[in-house]
Amino acid sequence: MAPEIAKLGHVALVSTDLEKSLVFFKEIIGLEETTEIDGVHYLRAYSDFQHHTLSIEAGENAHVKHIGWRTKTADCVLGFKELLDEQGIAVQEYPKGTTPGIGDSIRFQLPSGHTFELYNEVEKSKAASDKASILKNQVYKSWNKGISPRRFDHVNIHTTTDVDESYEFLMEVLGFNMREYVRGDDGILAGWMSVTPLVHDVAMIKKETLPTPARLHHISYWLDDTQDILRAADILKENNLPFIGPGKHGVSQAIYLYVMDPGSGCRVELFSGGYLIFEPDWEPVEWTLEERALSNTYWGDSVQDKELNNITIEAR
Amino acid sequence: MAPEIAKLGHVALVSTDLEKSLVFFKEIIGLEETTEIDGVHYLRAYSDFQHHTLSIEAGENAHVKHIGWRTKTADCVLGFKELLDEQGIAVQEYPKGTTPGIGDSIRFQLPSGHTFELYNEVEKSKAASDKASILKNQVYKSWNKGISPRRFDHVNIHTTTDVDESYEFLMEVLGFNMREYVRGDDGILAGWMSVTPLVHDVAMIKKETLPTPARLHHISYWLDDTQDILRAADILKENNLPFIGPGKHGVSQAIYLYVMDPGSGCRVELFSGGYLIFEPDWEPVEWTLEERALSNTYWGDSVQDKELNNITIEAR
Amino acid sequence: MAPEIAKLGHVALVSTDLEKSLVFFKEIIGLEETTEIDGVHYLRAYSDFQHHTLSIEAGENAHVKHIGWRTKTADCVLGFKELLDEQGIAVQEYPKGTTPGIGDSIRFQLPSGHTFELYNEVEKSKAASDKASILKNQVYKSWNKGISPRRFDHVNIHTTTDVDESYEFLMEVLGFNMREYVRGDDGILAGWMSVTPLVHDVAMIKKETLPTPARLHHISYWLDDTQDILRAADILKENNLPFIGPGKHGVSQAIYLYVMDPGSGCRVELFSGGYLIFEPDWEPVEWTLEERALSNTYWGDSVQDKELNNITIEAR
Amino acid sequence: MAPEIAKLGHVALVSTDLEKSLVFFKEIIGLEETTEIDGVHYLRAYSDFQHHTLSIEAGENAHVKHIGWRTKTADCVLGFKELLDEQGIAVQEYPKGTTPGIGDSIRFQLPSGHTFELYNEVEKSKAASDKASILKNQVYKSWNKGISPRRFDHVNIHTTTDVDESYEFLMEVLGFNMREYVRGDDGILAGWMSVTPLVHDVAMIKKETLPTPARLHHISYWLDDTQDILRAADILKENNLPFIGPGKHGVSQAIYLYVMDPGSGCRVELFSGGYLIFEPDWEPVEWTLEERALSNTYWGDSVQDKELNNITIEAR
Repeated sequence: MAPEIAKLGHVALVSTDLEKSLVFFKEIIGLEETTEIDGVHYLRAYSDFQHHTLSIEAGENAHVKHIGWRTKTADCVLGFKELLDEQGIAVQEYPKGTTPGIGDSIRFQLPSGHTFELYNEVEKSKAASDKASILKNQVYKSWNKGISPRRFDHVNIHTTTDVDESYEFLMEVLGFNMREYVRGDDGILAGWMSVTPLVHDVAMIKKETLPTPARLHHISYWLDDTQDILRAADILKENNLPFIGPGKHGVSQAIYLYVMDPGSGCRVELFSGGYLIFEPDWEPVEWTLEERALSNTYWGDSVQDKELNNITIEAR
Repeated sequence: MAPEIAKLGHVALVSTDLEKSLVFFKEIIGLEETTEIDGVHYLRAYSDFQHHTLSIEAGENAHVKHIGWRTKTADCVLGFKELLDEQGIAVQEYPKGTTPGIGDSIRFQLPSGHTFELYNEVEKSKAASDKASILKNQVYKSWNKGISPRRFDHVNIHTTTDVDESYEFLMEVLGFNMREYVRGDDGILAGWMSVTPLVHDVAMIKKETLPTPARLHHISYWLDDTQDILRAADILKENNLPFIGPGKHGVSQAIYLYVMDPGSGCRVELFSGGYLIFEPDWEPVEWTLEERALSNTYWGDSVQDKELNNITIEAR
Repeated sequence: MAPEIAKLGHVALVSTDLEKSLVFFKEIIGLEETTEIDGVHYLRAYSDFQHHTLSIEAGENAHVKHIGWRTKTADCVLGFKELLDEQGIAVQEYPKGTTPGIGDSIRFQLPSGHTFELYNEVEKSKAASDKASILKNQVYKSWNKGISPRRFDHVNIHTTTDVDESYEFLMEVLGFNMREYVRGDDGILAGWMSVTPLVHDVAMIKKETLPTPARLHHISYWLDDTQDILRAADILKENNLPFIGPGKHGVSQAIYLYVMDPGSGCRVELFSGGYLIFEPDWEPVEWTLEERALSNTYWGDSVQDKELNNITIEAR
Repeated sequence: MAPEIAKLGHVALVSTDLEKSLVFFKEIIGLEETTEIDGVHYLRAYSDFQHHTLSIEAGENAHVKHIGWRTKTADCVLGFKELLDEQGIAVQEYPKGTTPGIGDSIRFQLPSGHTFELYNEVEKSKAASDKASILKNQVYKSWNKGISPRRFDHVNIHTTTDVDESYEFLMEVLGFNMREYVRGDDGILAGWMSVTPLVHDVAMIKKETLPTPARLHHISYWLDDTQDILRAADILKENNLPFIGPGKHGVSQAIYLYVMDPGSGCRVELFSGGYLIFEPDWEPVEWTLEERALSNTYWGDSVQDKELNNITIEAR
């Protein structure tokens, strides 16, 4: 039986200005800190159930160490190890405890060079009693600080490599489903893929040139209501943080706001709305180049050809 | 390999006042009509991808003929047939075309007496060009009429039978996951179960006495934002339709509004917010009797001990 | 030329548990503190332009010292003094500085016994630079803490006295316009009155019995969006503060949530939506006793016959 | 005693494609039609209390015949007539019934050339019983069709003339208060003025060149919640109507969306949020040229240097 990924787990971020990054993620975005060990801060949204969905530590170059995914079972980690071995892909194994809150894991690079981590075991940490929700199905009280998203949603990565190879790898080896894509003259330019009913757990975009062949474009946290995104815009504006949005994507139909962590340069997409895919035989939605503007922005502040700045987060 | 259900499909409703039901579902709730064949009206929300999620026809007794579920593959229908045969459960088979838009199907009763239908093949009907969304991932334009929900969400059924038998059947035979439940002195009184990351595709509640042992309590349609639920309250009030809510459930954390189709007596829950379960090893959340009020209503107009009226929709 | 009141100014509250009141108003409601002088805390919402809209101090009996109103001009204060003298009503005069941020003022009792204060001069205090909005038309950054309302909205007072006398006084002497009222068998039972286009700056309700003949029922702060009221419900629930609502009033059409300051027993209504009256010849809207339920609650958690508790804030 | 304007009343619009304009204003924007007399359609929002706030008729050139204002009393119309005579301004008098629903009126041109109409008497038309709200303080049921705004809000007019002359006229003769303005190198370039606590009932903007010296830039209708503006964006997009926004203005702090009536070229701003001015001694807020971008757009899809097209509605 083929091993399966259950969900996006976490991103391990290195920041050149840890203090700034912590203010950004804890005070402005409003993530909670599960713990800090050896200078690494483990953060999550108020209703992320696993130990952390973002770790941040100081380093000389801002980059993503790896993007972590949780498998369906413990056996799936071994199953993926075998599959990757068969593909001739180098796999590093890490015993439980290498990363706090995470069990035995393996790491490897996509054809695009991005480093993925797979694991099954996670610590489902409770909140301290004064911060815990009165709801038994929620970890922390909501609305404690800043924007206060509910949960980690997806990652968006860019590549200058042959992107078809990576799409095939993500689908054939890792089991992702292509949900929507933009087709260019020479093939797919952008693909939104998921193992869950979300339209995407990961998007991969082809770029002609990048300062790094394996870029993390953004990580994304989810809020329940579009009004929460507009409140986020107020908060970011009052904190002098430039952002793109609000707007509504054509792809995924989600409401967006993009802001950059001023410490690491990591972009964060605040995300709400959108649709879920429950059909087991979903036909990927194709958007042509002519439709790309609509696929990017159904309405609102356009994302096309806009960048918050030119910082590039390498993710390998 | 065990057969699997992918998603809730549709409900086949019989109304004693078809005209009233059609005004309610089409003008007030704002469902779209895919087609009408032989007096049966096939309806769906603006972004339901399959042929219909609700059918309504006239009849002498208001009741639900069956609750339909879509399996992951065509083979799963056969697989479930075998499983049910093994259990000694009577299964009726219906060839493709028995219900417009739906392929080969089987029907059977839960231990509670509720009739379920399983099928895989569905017609993914397009909207007429003047009603079609400009978005390639959405069927109809949204906000065409009335409340305008996005998609079918879940069903809630009541039973006076030994409910444990049904929970076991739903989990062991049909593959549902228990997500949250209320435990009484003698066992589980209410269980929320799903095959998707939704907290529930189906809820089953134990009642001491009911006019029918197999009641449909409500069907539910989903809206993107809680503000849409408040707009729905305005619309229902102005149409002299009594309702319960708005409020926020503890279980599922969703925002709710309950209203009754005046034609059939079928309750409809308008639903938004809530959380998704992506953890593959989710521990069902237990609520005690003491916590039942909170599990019902986190805040808002309480659902406890309130009924819109005493009409009972039998679902067998 | 008749003196005129421009707007509701502030309420001077005495609490039996100042610390609890400050946590409630500053951390949960999210008011800002302009200053603290001699143990009196001067608070306001993020976009209240005058020095304070609420003052709180410790005292042995929780009560409201007075309800303050700002006149159109400085001459209006003198004008009202003359008018009140003519009516044979006792007037106390207070020089500028008696209350920080407020100029020369007069105080007197309504026929109902409630103490009103009139003044024109106010200090329009700026926010400290780290808390100031980047908007030149807003005082503080919004969303700094807790619920974060925009501005002070209205007061609601109860009386056991002959209420017609007070309505007449409010309209004939103070210049309020009756906007909506409930008529009982023996006359008006509840009146919503304003000098602004708001439906009410003050509501006065007749009660048969009260522990004090001159009760403050609630003060109210305004939020921009109904979604903000629902967010407030989450915050209050997570802080174990009981509340009534959310719901939508028939009178005023506003969305409401009622919560009580656990320090003083003062109720606070969180308020959004509603309508404005710009017609110069507005005919007061009459609601009969039969329509009272609708006038109280258009939909949602009903306010009728509900009390947060039996604490009574005297306002004389 | 100086005559006073109470509120903005209506705009009389001439369209080159009446049918298109009626579809736009009635089906898309969702205004109600009070009546149609002699080919002129009288429209209003669901809670506009006077007979109409917009009239539309067919004509060879799209233009605004006049912008109507309601005075506080009938005497004020005479008072303004005298004031205007004293200023040497030509005044036309129209007897009651010239415009359906409106009493005796006068018309004249601002120094900028824009035609204003003043009247006091209005017919407060009821809705037909099947369209009437169950609320006694609301005219029509809300959410009947399309976007469904609550009420008429403001007008925005442009001029190439000496704008200071018009500002002075609006303030000194007509009694408007300057609330916010943008100061350029040679004086005020844009002013937001009101007789009500709204930040503006009218905005007048100086332009160097215009196809007409007296342009109507837009009329504006108000919605209760920002979510309603986002729903409006969905509706406009699905109807292939280009728009600017959503965004949040610095001036007024209101949420905006600009769309153009494809029949007449008249722009409509959909408006929510914002703040009210109750202070009787409000100091106009000054924005410099450097701050103009912020004054235009606090966040969102920028209005700066964007036009829906180059159609110009003359308003004289």
